[in-house]
Amino acid sequence: MKFRSPKPEAVRLCDPVLAPRQAANRAATIPSSLDFCEKTHRIDALRLDWDESRDWRPHHFWDSDVAKVMEGMARDLRIHPDPALARKLDGLVAVVAAAQRPDGYLNSFYTLTAPDKRWSNLRDMHELYCAGHLIEAAVAHFEATGSRVFLDAACCCADLIGSVFGRGRGKRRGYPGHEELELALCRLAATTGRAKYLRLAKYFIDERGRAPNYFEAEGSPVRHPLSDYQADAPVREQADAHGHAVRWAYLACGMADVADATGDAGLLEAALRMEKNATERRMLVTGGIGTSPWGDERFENDWHLRNKDAYAESCASIGLALLEKRLHAITGDARHVDVMERAIYNGVLSGVSLSGDRFFYQNPLESNADSRWPAQRQSWFACSCCPTNFCRFLPQLGELCWALAPDGSEVRLLVPAASALDLDNGLRLVVESDYPYDGKITVLVEAPREPRGPRDSSDPRDPRDSRDSSRPSASSLFALSLRIPGWCRRFALAVNGRRVRAAAKGGFVSVRRAWVPGDAVTLDLAMPVETVRAHANVADDAGCVAIQRGPLVYALESVDNGPDLHRFEIDASQDFALVQARGLPRGTMAIRGRALVRERPGDELYSSAVPRVRRRVFTAIPYALWQNRGPSEMRVWIRETPPTSTSFPARRGGNNGNNHNGANP
Amino acid sequence: MKFRSPKPEAVRLCDPVLAPRQAANRAATIPSSLDFCEKTHRIDALRLDWDESRDWRPHHFWDSDVAKVMEGMARDLRIHPDPALARKLDGLVAVVAAAQRPDGYLNSFYTLTAPDKRWSNLRDMHELYCAGHLIEAAVAHFEATGSRVFLDAACCCADLIGSVFGRGRGKRRGYPGHEELELALCRLAATTGRAKYLRLAKYFIDERGRAPNYFEAEGSPVRHPLSDYQADAPVREQADAHGHAVRWAYLACGMADVADATGDAGLLEAALRMEKNATERRMLVTGGIGTSPWGDERFENDWHLRNKDAYAESCASIGLALLEKRLHAITGDARHVDVMERAIYNGVLSGVSLSGDRFFYQNPLESNADSRWPAQRQSWFACSCCPTNFCRFLPQLGELCWALAPDGSEVRLLVPAASALDLDNGLRLVVESDYPYDGKITVLVEAPREPRGPRDSSDPRDPRDSRDSSRPSASSLFALSLRIPGWCRRFALAVNGRRVRAAAKGGFVSVRRAWVPGDAVTLDLAMPVETVRAHANVADDAGCVAIQRGPLVYALESVDNGPDLHRFEIDASQDFALVQARGLPRGTMAIRGRALVRERPGDELYSSAVPRVRRRVFTAIPYALWQNRGPSEMRVWIRETPPTSTSFPARRGGNNGNNHNGANP
Repeated sequence: MKFRSPKPEAVRLCDPVLAPRQAANRAATIPSSLDFCEKTHRIDALRLDWDESRDWRPHHFWDSDVAKVMEGMARDLRIHPDPALARKLDGLVAVVAAAQRPDGYLNSFYTLTAPDKRWSNLRDMHELYCAGHLIEAAVAHFEATGSRVFLDAACCCADLIGSVFGRGRGKRRGYPGHEELELALCRLAATTGRAKYLRLAKYFIDERGRAPNYFEAEGSPVRHPLSDYQADAPVREQADAHGHAVRWAYLACGMADVADATGDAGLLEAALRMEKNATERRMLVTGGIGTSPWGDERFENDWHLRNKDAYAESCASIGLALLEKRLHAITGDARHVDVMERAIYNGVLSGVSLSGDRFFYQNPLESNADSRWPAQRQSWFACSCCPTNFCRFLPQLGELCWALAPDGSEVRLLVPAASALDLDNGLRLVVESDYPYDGKITVLVEAPREPRGPRDSSDPRDPRDSRDSSRPSASSLFALSLRIPGWCRRFALAVNGRRVRAAAKGGFVSVRRAWVPGDAVTLDLAMPVETVRAHANVADDAGCVAIQRGPLVYALESVDNGPDLHRFEIDASQDFALVQARGLPRGTMAIRGRALVRERPGDELYSSAVPRVRRRVFTAIPYALWQNRGPSEMRVWIRETPPTSTSFPARRGGNNGNNHNGANP
Repeated sequence: MKFRSPKPEAVRLCDPVLAPRQAANRAATIPSSLDFCEKTHRIDALRLDWDESRDWRPHHFWDSDVAKVMEGMARDLRIHPDPALARKLDGLVAVVAAAQRPDGYLNSFYTLTAPDKRWSNLRDMHELYCAGHLIEAAVAHFEATGSRVFLDAACCCADLIGSVFGRGRGKRRGYPGHEELELALCRLAATTGRAKYLRLAKYFIDERGRAPNYFEAEGSPVRHPLSDYQADAPVREQADAHGHAVRWAYLACGMADVADATGDAGLLEAALRMEKNATERRMLVTGGIGTSPWGDERFENDWHLRNKDAYAESCASIGLALLEKRLHAITGDARHVDVMERAIYNGVLSGVSLSGDRFFYQNPLESNADSRWPAQRQSWFACSCCPTNFCRFLPQLGELCWALAPDGSEVRLLVPAASALDLDNGLRLVVESDYPYDGKITVLVEAPREPRGPRDSSDPRDPRDSRDSSRPSASSLFALSLRIPGWCRRFALAVNGRRVRAAAKGGFVSVRRAWVPGDAVTLDLAMPVETVRAHANVADDAGCVAIQRGPLVYALESVDNGPDLHRFEIDASQDFALVQARGLPRGTMAIRGRALVRERPGDELYSSAVPRVRRRVFTAIPYALWQNRGPSEMRVWIRETPPTSTSFPARRGGNNGNNHNGANP
């Protein structure tokens, strides 16, 4: 791994977009998810407080929801200590620990409803998936509190799984139907230092999709093709990104983790190949993946990107962001940060309301009251993976903005959102910016840092410190690398007020020096409004542009523009204006421009009447913020008025047939 | 009823489009459907040749498939006598008659698998639907052969149904979950002269959707909302066309039949209101209805017309054509013929290959290898309603071209396909035309007619003759009315070579005189290539045109144009050329024109690169004929180059802000 993330408590966000989302998560997403987990009996199930006489029934992936909220609580405690929340979390840990069977088995659904059916349907019953989320939660709890209660339970559960599955004599050659455990085991291995968990993760990765196929041998009634589970071939032989997109993203994360921890270049190459296909052929402009609306949430074929009715689950974009963070850490390639940033600012944040308590499960690029998917965010879902994923993802936003070379030689500012980073060498880096609404970035070097973190620094932190073998040196000599985003075509860099002519190398400009408090680096990223076109092979975007500025994809909403957004047509070469968005948080920049509206007159459903053209003004807001001002139609891809009339051949008459390509009709 | 259809045997088609479809039906569709009915055990089920030991299981709508093929055989016998086919049909009639229970019950599924469960799930089990198709087949068999065997069985079955359902004491207040029986009972009443069947049909129509809801009371697990079954409200209160489109079309046919037979103006008005909504707000340009792809084949909301993945079942367009025929017959309104013609020439005929043995179940307006629906026609389906519907629909094409005033005072040429019609007054009308490929129509009056028909005219035909109370007089004084299609904007009429200045009244030009052999009427319908635009509310067609000529909607196929049809863009105001279509039947006219192809350069999925424009020639073929030359992409709605550059405001700079509507951005 070329880069690691900073410790969560070392980063404090104070930007206009990410910081408020973390605050809303704390104030609303986590409490409301906890509340729903209680009200919907998810926690009762973990209390093993159920029998057939109840008016509810445990569900096979309920444990994962509780685990994800717990992980979110633990992650948030790390960036924002809160004794009351810590007590609540410890209470839940006690519930989970008590639900564990003496042999380590930990799954409320089977324990309550079918204790003799353990491991009987790995493909569909999410048993190993739930275990993965419980392990992730346990690691987060340990890292936040130092308590081993949950971690020990997780190890015990992982040990049981390792005794049941694997290549050894008498073991089953199964693997998770919904990936997640693989990456969780890697985290457990890193936290505990026990290589056996890494070996188990590697076994699951390597065994997946081998012949004879385990899922076929299980013999449960077929629900989806094996490719939907990425189990149609060994993962190293999978040429593209296919199947259920959340499963895929977690698989790819697990592959990257195992590849990194074991130095398995072939496995890394397979993960990169998959990721390249996913992001260069099968990803919405918002970083949404898995567009198929046919009940399978899967990737469609190359270039098949729908807007209306696109699935693009919130969890899939979260998974993609987590994958890209890993791939940048391993390879140092800035391209991965471009994708991560695209996903976070658009397809991820669209999934949760500014208030933090309403969620989109699907994130299409076009929506109205007749859409396949709800046109308004919901407070909870029967399958409520998305809200609980926000609980655990949003506290990570700060970590995702930075990357550190393990030897302390380089500090990378990945996403220049306003934030402060405490370095191990005693310096603090403070980013001042209005990013993503403005491209002017100042990084101030400050000292000394104030002590922060969830607990007093005198607490014994052995487990974490012991694994932190690559602690940076205390030297203040390091390269400060600032990312030049893929969308940026011009930038200016200055150090302590002096212009520096630096070229971006591999997506970063670097200034290496012995930094002292008071140093300041300024980066000015040109951030004009861009009109983006999809590849010529993408049928659903043909003749359309998406409006983008910096990392933000914009959308038209009927709240600003009136209904019937499909009638709008824009000239991409016009000068757009930036204005404060109405009814959205102060500082939110909207884009205003001139549009044409083509309307065929007449009430007939079909007629050869010629459209009338009217001039209109349009206002676009950041896609992620749509449907925060009441019900609204929304559209990202807008039809484009052809660039200039002169680029088209004369329109009339057969007398210019000699200009013509091929036969004159 | 203002108009009746001619007797099937009185019409002989000889046009380039419809006549070959009838021939293919005879040569391929009927034989292959019969073959599949046998191979898939549908006929074995009717033989009651099944027990639990078999490797197949009867299905609850199998009987309808066999009945529809039988109806098709009978109808075809009527226009094309064939003793071998007649014997085969009689053999099937014997099978069906033998399957009938002593009390009249006739349904192989329940008889074989659950004789005690009769009528237990009207909503989903298609029991009354199958009865309807058996009754329709029986009527057709009787009309073709004069044999009462099948008709008597059908009466017996209808009598049983009438004893079980109705408002009388001890009867059940049920009605069909899939409409069809209603219209079948009307046919049975007309054929037998027994009003009780009409009363039963009226009961089913009137009872539908009343509170308390019968389907809810049945208590079967909910599969679809009541609106999908048109059972959400009494039919007279249903404001729009909704739910499963085939069900809806058959319901509306039944409503029209009952309204006509009983003089129920309110019911007719309800049927017309539904039809208006279906065809003016919810119909594809091809006459496809029921566009929802979400497993329910239902109408979507007003203006919500998708192209890709549109369902538009073949049976739904067939049902719509049959409805429009009825509504013209009742009202005389030419608008209904316009819709009927649109449906037949486009959305119906697209459902069957030119060879007659391959079928589309869905008829979207855009297709490629990644479409939701098969991109190639199939020879049969598990739910094979479409092939068997063609069996019975295609023999009716001749009847659908003409309409006769019952008193002989008017003969209407609805669809001017080349055909001959033997009138009851001894004259024969011969239409010479290349319609729909040419708008020149000549109607010749000839005499005397040659005897035709399936049987010798000395056969006793009492049952049919007795109901033919409105037999036209033998006078040759009548109005010959020629339809001026809704798509036609200019026409010229001549009688015996002399130009007649006649205005179209209600969609027809009429010439009333005492016709004598040798008379000739010529009608020249201007049939330019038209570019049609959808209503401004239709989002999926915004900025696009469909190419239409006469009644034919055209489509681009990759066989002619190469792949990536979404890149094509056309100037609607250009002069198009007509050429012989390659690889399609001689006489098939293709349309050729100039197109632009906009291609954004570069391999990136998203970029702000400016598209390059290339000139291309495009070729469009009749939509109904696509996928007759191997696998192909297809697209109906093509992006339109804006009409003229001058109709757009200047494209650059803020200096023309004073031209602007509203705030200058």
